[in-house]
Amino acid sequence: MNDKKRLKVAVIGASGYVGVELVRLLLGHPNVQIKYLTGDSTAGQPVEKVFPHFNGCGLPPLSYLQEVDWEELDVAFFCLPHGAGQEIIASVPRTLRVIDLSADFRLFNVDRYKEWYGKPHAAPDVQKEAVYGLSEIFREPIKNARLVACPGCYPTSALLPLVPLLSSGKISTDGIIIDSKSGISGAGRSGKVANLFAEVDGGFRAYSIANHRHISEIEQTLQAASGMANMQVTFTPQVVPMTRGILSTIYVKLSPEVEFEELREVLEQRYANESFVKLMDGDHAPSTKEVVGTNRCFINIFKNRIRHRAIIVSVIDNLIKGASGQAIQNFNLMFGFREDTGLRQIPVYP
Amino acid sequence: MNDKKRLKVAVIGASGYVGVELVRLLLGHPNVQIKYLTGDSTAGQPVEKVFPHFNGCGLPPLSYLQEVDWEELDVAFFCLPHGAGQEIIASVPRTLRVIDLSADFRLFNVDRYKEWYGKPHAAPDVQKEAVYGLSEIFREPIKNARLVACPGCYPTSALLPLVPLLSSGKISTDGIIIDSKSGISGAGRSGKVANLFAEVDGGFRAYSIANHRHISEIEQTLQAASGMANMQVTFTPQVVPMTRGILSTIYVKLSPEVEFEELREVLEQRYANESFVKLMDGDHAPSTKEVVGTNRCFINIFKNRIRHRAIIVSVIDNLIKGASGQAIQNFNLMFGFREDTGLRQIPVYP
Amino acid sequence: MNDKKRLKVAVIGASGYVGVELVRLLLGHPNVQIKYLTGDSTAGQPVEKVFPHFNGCGLPPLSYLQEVDWEELDVAFFCLPHGAGQEIIASVPRTLRVIDLSADFRLFNVDRYKEWYGKPHAAPDVQKEAVYGLSEIFREPIKNARLVACPGCYPTSALLPLVPLLSSGKISTDGIIIDSKSGISGAGRSGKVANLFAEVDGGFRAYSIANHRHISEIEQTLQAASGMANMQVTFTPQVVPMTRGILSTIYVKLSPEVEFEELREVLEQRYANESFVKLMDGDHAPSTKEVVGTNRCFINIFKNRIRHRAIIVSVIDNLIKGASGQAIQNFNLMFGFREDTGLRQIPVYP
Amino acid sequence: MNDKKRLKVAVIGASGYVGVELVRLLLGHPNVQIKYLTGDSTAGQPVEKVFPHFNGCGLPPLSYLQEVDWEELDVAFFCLPHGAGQEIIASVPRTLRVIDLSADFRLFNVDRYKEWYGKPHAAPDVQKEAVYGLSEIFREPIKNARLVACPGCYPTSALLPLVPLLSSGKISTDGIIIDSKSGISGAGRSGKVANLFAEVDGGFRAYSIANHRHISEIEQTLQAASGMANMQVTFTPQVVPMTRGILSTIYVKLSPEVEFEELREVLEQRYANESFVKLMDGDHAPSTKEVVGTNRCFINIFKNRIRHRAIIVSVIDNLIKGASGQAIQNFNLMFGFREDTGLRQIPVYP
Repeated sequence: MNDKKRLKVAVIGASGYVGVELVRLLLGHPNVQIKYLTGDSTAGQPVEKVFPHFNGCGLPPLSYLQEVDWEELDVAFFCLPHGAGQEIIASVPRTLRVIDLSADFRLFNVDRYKEWYGKPHAAPDVQKEAVYGLSEIFREPIKNARLVACPGCYPTSALLPLVPLLSSGKISTDGIIIDSKSGISGAGRSGKVANLFAEVDGGFRAYSIANHRHISEIEQTLQAASGMANMQVTFTPQVVPMTRGILSTIYVKLSPEVEFEELREVLEQRYANESFVKLMDGDHAPSTKEVVGTNRCFINIFKNRIRHRAIIVSVIDNLIKGASGQAIQNFNLMFGFREDTGLRQIPVYP
Repeated sequence: MNDKKRLKVAVIGASGYVGVELVRLLLGHPNVQIKYLTGDSTAGQPVEKVFPHFNGCGLPPLSYLQEVDWEELDVAFFCLPHGAGQEIIASVPRTLRVIDLSADFRLFNVDRYKEWYGKPHAAPDVQKEAVYGLSEIFREPIKNARLVACPGCYPTSALLPLVPLLSSGKISTDGIIIDSKSGISGAGRSGKVANLFAEVDGGFRAYSIANHRHISEIEQTLQAASGMANMQVTFTPQVVPMTRGILSTIYVKLSPEVEFEELREVLEQRYANESFVKLMDGDHAPSTKEVVGTNRCFINIFKNRIRHRAIIVSVIDNLIKGASGQAIQNFNLMFGFREDTGLRQIPVYP
Repeated sequence: MNDKKRLKVAVIGASGYVGVELVRLLLGHPNVQIKYLTGDSTAGQPVEKVFPHFNGCGLPPLSYLQEVDWEELDVAFFCLPHGAGQEIIASVPRTLRVIDLSADFRLFNVDRYKEWYGKPHAAPDVQKEAVYGLSEIFREPIKNARLVACPGCYPTSALLPLVPLLSSGKISTDGIIIDSKSGISGAGRSGKVANLFAEVDGGFRAYSIANHRHISEIEQTLQAASGMANMQVTFTPQVVPMTRGILSTIYVKLSPEVEFEELREVLEQRYANESFVKLMDGDHAPSTKEVVGTNRCFINIFKNRIRHRAIIVSVIDNLIKGASGQAIQNFNLMFGFREDTGLRQIPVYP
Repeated sequence: MNDKKRLKVAVIGASGYVGVELVRLLLGHPNVQIKYLTGDSTAGQPVEKVFPHFNGCGLPPLSYLQEVDWEELDVAFFCLPHGAGQEIIASVPRTLRVIDLSADFRLFNVDRYKEWYGKPHAAPDVQKEAVYGLSEIFREPIKNARLVACPGCYPTSALLPLVPLLSSGKISTDGIIIDSKSGISGAGRSGKVANLFAEVDGGFRAYSIANHRHISEIEQTLQAASGMANMQVTFTPQVVPMTRGILSTIYVKLSPEVEFEELREVLEQRYANESFVKLMDGDHAPSTKEVVGTNRCFINIFKNRIRHRAIIVSVIDNLIKGASGQAIQNFNLMFGFREDTGLRQIPVYP
């Protein structure tokens, strides 16, 4: 593709944290022209009015969904609340490529969708076209997809290390525990008392223990990787008093007669040539600060004192690799741009 | 004991975070008269000079250890760095009762001490007298102890739920995983770059994966509770960008033919009459904010989706129930005061 | 008054941050029996359900205002939103003493009330009875008041140093600038996007520049202290990414022929015998951390390089000395208890 | 200059916060090739070892100052502690252009330097060459300078609004008060107890009241702008519990017969065509979050209730516009690149 070409894009649902972050990243992408930003409650206002940090960025005003001329677009990014996008995506022209950042098209089995999301899928036919957008794992199908369903933030942090280990058969499908900790931006930009500064500051808490919806996409992907249709995982999401970042601590058992070093090798080889996913050297335990503001996933794996067990630490920025950055990575794959175009940020430290 | 009696106490090592917190709590204890506060680098200064928040509290000045007249005292609290107190405690008059908040006397087996702390124990004979000061579990021996070794912060949060479950035989000794998250005050009041605000703020990280020294006291206590001399646990400590509080997420397997509800009952009964340890109702996942500033431990236990597994959440204030508060609770036991004397704080919320 | 007497109190509006803090402090007051806690949206629930940190405190359930039997009470604390309490307070039995923590009765001139609060005062006759509850300044009238209107948080921090300096004539009424910084709990416990953790964390901002309502009570009190009916001040409120605490930096000019040391002496003498207000020694600039969790106000005054000018720094806990603590201090004055009863906390540090 | 040319640069003192941030920004500059990174205590190590977030960035290792081949370089950025660079800069080849981020060459009058920094200037001859690197104000002399002394962080935030207002004669030189609040990264990356997370978290404090060294460069620049050799300002620096950002609240008096709107116009016209400095519309009070991570300075000016007075709010990122970003802006000016090359970041929000 011509390096100078600018594709016409819309961000549907641009006033949540995922949408805003996507807009920021798209502004730095050389092959993108932002045509529409929609926002229900914010429509009609200049973006700079709602988000003063966009002052001077030359963005179009926030508009209603109804004002979008889909024919004009090359691609639409959907950042709507879960459940709100299925019917809309079913109705857009079939020539439009769609990157959905919600959970609406992540589960291939619509019965499973109903089970976890509590209502029937509104666009089961469109679901069939969807590719799960975990970029490093499903790179080839993503390239040709019309509709990419970007993974959730927690699943991204857990699947990147677990998929190669399970595919290779080096770890057991039994007893995998994913203990995840997230910054509060994952809870979104709505005015809930529980997410007030005074409530979150100085405290740490778990929530949705053993029943968080992200379990469904984690298991779907791990079942495919392992070939074990019934494998289950334990997943505990927790809130850290920080704005961004996810760290997942993952406890696994080695398969019989596998040595710890083999696990390290699997990850090393799998991610040696990736731009964004990196296995750390030695015993460095990565911090979320090493990836915040970037599309990176840093991983390390540690030998447990207890025989045949290992501990994995994986960190991402929940809004970037866990949402908007991975969406752009998928966009680059779909349209033939270099995979890291617009995604070469380095963390803002300290 | 006469309610109005004031015992003469010294705080040895009063200028670290544990020492300072102990002083604050002792100031509110009706049966205590603070005679000495020692601090190596701060000796000779008024406490208010180093810690302006003690302004107006009428405390004695910070002094050198050498200035302490041990004969004058009823009890001494030691808050020295690990390893610094063994010889001093061995040398004080045998009539003096000692409450040690360091790791110096926590491990009954001095070989194990050497293995985990990297040097021989300097007072192996005194070690024989020491009682492990986990108040709710070792209440009776603590009452008569001359030397109480207060538990570490992480162990306190993990042992309170695990000991009754293992003692009752309801959970398996195999595969226990303790994933703990702590505020940064646990790292102490020394000027390390890694603990600067700019380094800790906005980040989450693990450290000492599979080799933290607290493993030794956790395993020592769980081995005693279960009667399994070789049982091992997985323990991962992690740093949260907050000042105080520990939350431990603990993954356990049920013993064969045990139902989940039996675990709940064990904890319910064990802690029904305790002042500080509480099993939460229903599915409330306790937050560290519910215990910070108090001597409480809030616990809840959750059924896992995966058969025969459960998840426990336990929260404490690392500097209070995990250090200074438990030390005072032990002091109350040793001297016959009501166990919650000086420890009836309610969390400062929000 | 008999030390053991327990007065019957109600907290009207117990589920905001000010109400919750008041309940915590009242629980530690030996002469108080809490009879009612009301909360509009929370009525009917156990307090522990809404505020788990009150677990085990033995509080009455949250109830509707209509359920309060006023006749049964000795005193009622009102923590309602501004404007919501005037009519209710006008309707309670005249034998009931009332401590109002809202702005409803702070302005003696009801025209001024209308000007700043945008609507007519609903109980102008009751207003006449109200005493402005800045405890150290209006101690005598507070003792006999039926209705005490507790000051706002910002005004408390500014007035305590300024009133004695103006009364003494040592500083000019002209050009006083109060630059105040507050933790976000001052904004209350309602789910506003601007107060979300992700919005407040890592940022500092000013608001209501030159038009914040607290200007009205600051000027009312300074006009009385100086005898200058028209004196005006500049006041800038700002939000700090922390939960509690206010620091006010106050810029003043010395009156002609006054030396800096005279200002220091005025403050020194004025507050020498106060329990809560303290002038710091030397050049120590007090931090909010030295007062958070307490009813204290720490003040220091600094000579400016520029002739005849001085800089004052004043710190309080906005929810305690700036609200609930001062309310209890006033309660103690009104009912003849020692002024610091229930208010002897030391800051939780670190 | 050829757009593709890459100049050879060294960062002297690359392991403090200013140095690290400079390296991050230089990595994104298309016309820069980083040849050396020096760091005293870190020399000999790969950068990624000390700063894991630079993993994969292809940087040279940290080296000793002595290893730098100055002849090879086009430009050197000095990020050494104050006082450490004067002799070194005096000794480098005169063909090398130098951008100094310390205070070493900011004061043109070496007597004033001695007075504020407590020791004689070590390179008074080199001082004569130095240009004060406040980019928007001294753009022309910067272009041709061999040595640019970049302003301090606080001065940058204060001078950008004040210089045009004073130059235009619209505000009085008398009684200017600059009340500044900074994130803790301004205190640098050394292990001081006062800067620990547990000390800074949840607190706000002032320091160096009326005697901070930045006063000297603020007054030097304002004296030049106003033509009043003796004008003085009041300046109060304060620490906010956040990592980055400065907000200065500035109190000014209007000159006789000047109307408020004239001040607004002066700023509007002065900064209408600047890339980085922006006057906000209407009554929007800018937050530090709107500029953090960027080279921006957002300013707004507010009419005071008190006649003939105004209040200015100015925000920058202390490490970017207040240090490394402005250094690169000056580099762009000195070498003829577009002024915003490498500096087009948008804030990471939330």
